[in-house]
Amino acid sequence: MRELRVTPIKNGTVIDHIPAGMALKVLKILGIGDAVSSTVTVAMHVPSRLMGWKDIVKVEDRELGSREIALVAPTASVNVIRNYNVAEKHRVALPDRAVGILKCGNPNCISNAREPVESEFVVRSKSPLRVFCKFCDRELEDIPAHIV
Amino acid sequence: MRELRVTPIKNGTVIDHIPAGMALKVLKILGIGDAVSSTVTVAMHVPSRLMGWKDIVKVEDRELGSREIALVAPTASVNVIRNYNVAEKHRVALPDRAVGILKCGNPNCISNAREPVESEFVVRSKSPLRVFCKFCDRELEDIPAHIV
Repeated sequence: MRELRVTPIKNGTVIDHIPAGMALKVLKILGIGDAVSSTVTVAMHVPSRLMGWKDIVKVEDRELGSREIALVAPTASVNVIRNYNVAEKHRVALPDRAVGILKCGNPNCISNAREPVESEFVVRSKSPLRVFCKFCDRELEDIPAHIV
Repeated sequence: MRELRVTPIKNGTVIDHIPAGMALKVLKILGIGDAVSSTVTVAMHVPSRLMGWKDIVKVEDRELGSREIALVAPTASVNVIRNYNVAEKHRVALPDRAVGILKCGNPNCISNAREPVESEFVVRSKSPLRVFCKFCDRELEDIPAHIV
């Protein structure tokens, strides 16, 4: 029997098949930090038949559907759990735009100046993933490293 | 029956009774980030009979004994697990000094200049916890916020 690292939850959201090493980035995108008020379980570097290694994030009592997760975890699946049953299951789908969650790599970009400008990136290609700053048009390299 | 959020591990270290909200800081102190190569499970904001809410960190196949954990999680207990048994159990104990893991809050401190100086703090009081920079002697306020 394959050993489960994390037990089932009664209600909430399970984000599975996150690429190994990306769980903490997913938490960041979801806004989950030190002040979290739901129970959150994170498993990192777990053996996976499909992926070799994967990460898993479980958030109890919250139904999440953040599409931005796809920016760092395009392989992820999101399962909404109700009363121990999978009520909804979907793959994450890339958004067309990412607003306020990535930081432009161009130090001279207006979004990096002390202006009240929210960062915004346009997804121009989904595979391979290529995103461009709406303001300076520079392509963002290494997306996971640029999460706000 | 109390529900377990995380299953037992065969070998490794379980850090239990971490104050709720401090698990990600504990990971940071342990140097566990995106590139982790052991399986790591983190449970945040878990109900605790003793503490109300707590966090738990489990690291498989590594025996950890970092005393610096006490700087952010003085209530934590560290359990070394071998073949599903608790082989060693100890409370974390505050170190006398913390080298290289905290950043001085004084912007003019030499440890914040571009000098090859490793930060160092002296623990002058354990309860309440008070630590002072070895270089500029300033007391560090809000220790968890100043982890490198």
